[in-house]
Amino acid sequence: MSFDEYLELNLPKIDSFHPHFNDALAWVLRAGGKHFRAKLLLGIVETLRPELTKDAFSVAFGVECLHTYSLIHDDLPAMDNASLRRGVATLHVKYDEVTAILAGDALNTHAFYLISHANLDPKTLLKCIQTLSSDGGIYGMIIGQAIDCYFEHKHLSLEELEFLHAHKTGALIAASMKMGAIISGLDDESCEQIYKIGLKLGLAFQIHDDIIDATQDEKSAGKPTNNDGIKNSFTNLLGVKGAIKARDKLENEILDELANSPILPLVNDLINKYLKEQNA
Amino acid sequence: MSFDEYLELNLPKIDSFHPHFNDALAWVLRAGGKHFRAKLLLGIVETLRPELTKDAFSVAFGVECLHTYSLIHDDLPAMDNASLRRGVATLHVKYDEVTAILAGDALNTHAFYLISHANLDPKTLLKCIQTLSSDGGIYGMIIGQAIDCYFEHKHLSLEELEFLHAHKTGALIAASMKMGAIISGLDDESCEQIYKIGLKLGLAFQIHDDIIDATQDEKSAGKPTNNDGIKNSFTNLLGVKGAIKARDKLENEILDELANSPILPLVNDLINKYLKEQNA
Repeated sequence: MSFDEYLELNLPKIDSFHPHFNDALAWVLRAGGKHFRAKLLLGIVETLRPELTKDAFSVAFGVECLHTYSLIHDDLPAMDNASLRRGVATLHVKYDEVTAILAGDALNTHAFYLISHANLDPKTLLKCIQTLSSDGGIYGMIIGQAIDCYFEHKHLSLEELEFLHAHKTGALIAASMKMGAIISGLDDESCEQIYKIGLKLGLAFQIHDDIIDATQDEKSAGKPTNNDGIKNSFTNLLGVKGAIKARDKLENEILDELANSPILPLVNDLINKYLKEQNA
Repeated sequence: MSFDEYLELNLPKIDSFHPHFNDALAWVLRAGGKHFRAKLLLGIVETLRPELTKDAFSVAFGVECLHTYSLIHDDLPAMDNASLRRGVATLHVKYDEVTAILAGDALNTHAFYLISHANLDPKTLLKCIQTLSSDGGIYGMIIGQAIDCYFEHKHLSLEELEFLHAHKTGALIAASMKMGAIISGLDDESCEQIYKIGLKLGLAFQIHDDIIDATQDEKSAGKPTNNDGIKNSFTNLLGVKGAIKARDKLENEILDELANSPILPLVNDLINKYLKEQNA
């Protein structure tokens, strides 16, 4: 079974008389998306400990739930007020704000439900939960998002913008790779090395996103673009060419640092697939 | 050190250039509140395995973080649109909606950070995380809240209202008691018995809340009251006298079922303290 099939079969649902809450929970989860973080995690396990891949599905799904909740809340009227996500209506547009807030809350908590119920060693799962609750929480994604919102109309330096995205985007990607390493039984030092690679990959991913926003139209990106014109972005600070250069530099560093690692082909494939496809 | 002192010393904070996010995270956590759920959990551990009480503080704090996030989000303009909570301004009034959404999200995730970092056996912590992510998530609090919002202006039967509150309020109180039992090393069957007592206690607590809302003014309750006049409530369905009778019946059942249990004095004290003080 592929991860996408697993996700479809294990969508969260509750037995109750609420008319649409189960549909709302599933709406953004099943609306496509690259499952980039889940596939990074699973790709590392598949490379290092293939016999554990199936048991890691539940952990990878947890990461996707946490990521998806963050998208649902980012799209809320008080935040980005977005009407389109992954090519479909955002949740507060399809239903209402209450449903979007609660479905987001639900998927945040459900991430830890899925990880804590995975069929893996308790110590391993506890380390995964420590990682996701740190990098997906106040020490990572949340402070990045809080800074992104607070400074929406205020100037950030390049250093501050990197801090923002290392937390908002990088931390969760790095955490996904680290969890793959934890499940594969790597020692703490190796897990931290992979985590640092993940931070760079996350930054490259974000710069790539800014490049797409600055250069593509809404239809091909599958979401509203050019909204970032008035916001802090790498393309605004470095120009499109400077941003492409910064992204490519990060990619080269990542590939150099992984030169002798068994996960090099995996990361190389992901870079080719996700950071080249829509090249400016 | 008391739990209240522990909470004050361990408020979540992040090293960043955001001007008010740490204050926002701490605002509702330190604004009083009874810490009813944390004290239930800790009271059970103190009764059954006193030597583990201090190590359980982090788990109890996790429960308070999860409960507090739910209050912050419940108060949002799209939900109850409340301006006062625990006698102080709600977070979206003090700062803004973005801050309230993100601080809530943060405390939800941080609950699992705190529990996963507690100094207790990994298997114990994993069971606690399974419990909190189930009863604090889609299978408990969230579906209760979703039903509460969706049916705000629609009639619910007594059975449906009990389902709502068994999930919205009861599940987290029951989970807190169960986690106390888990940490104390009780077997699965005993943990489930305590969980069921907790569901009844939660229902009694909610009925009591409805009675307060129906009979007291804003100043003495520390929050807006009588908003529930147009909503589904036990006092609207049963009348104030009927609600008092239902609450007292639940209390008596709880005390009967605990007749031979070492936690009877604890639960009896809590009932006297929290369900009698503001008696109608």
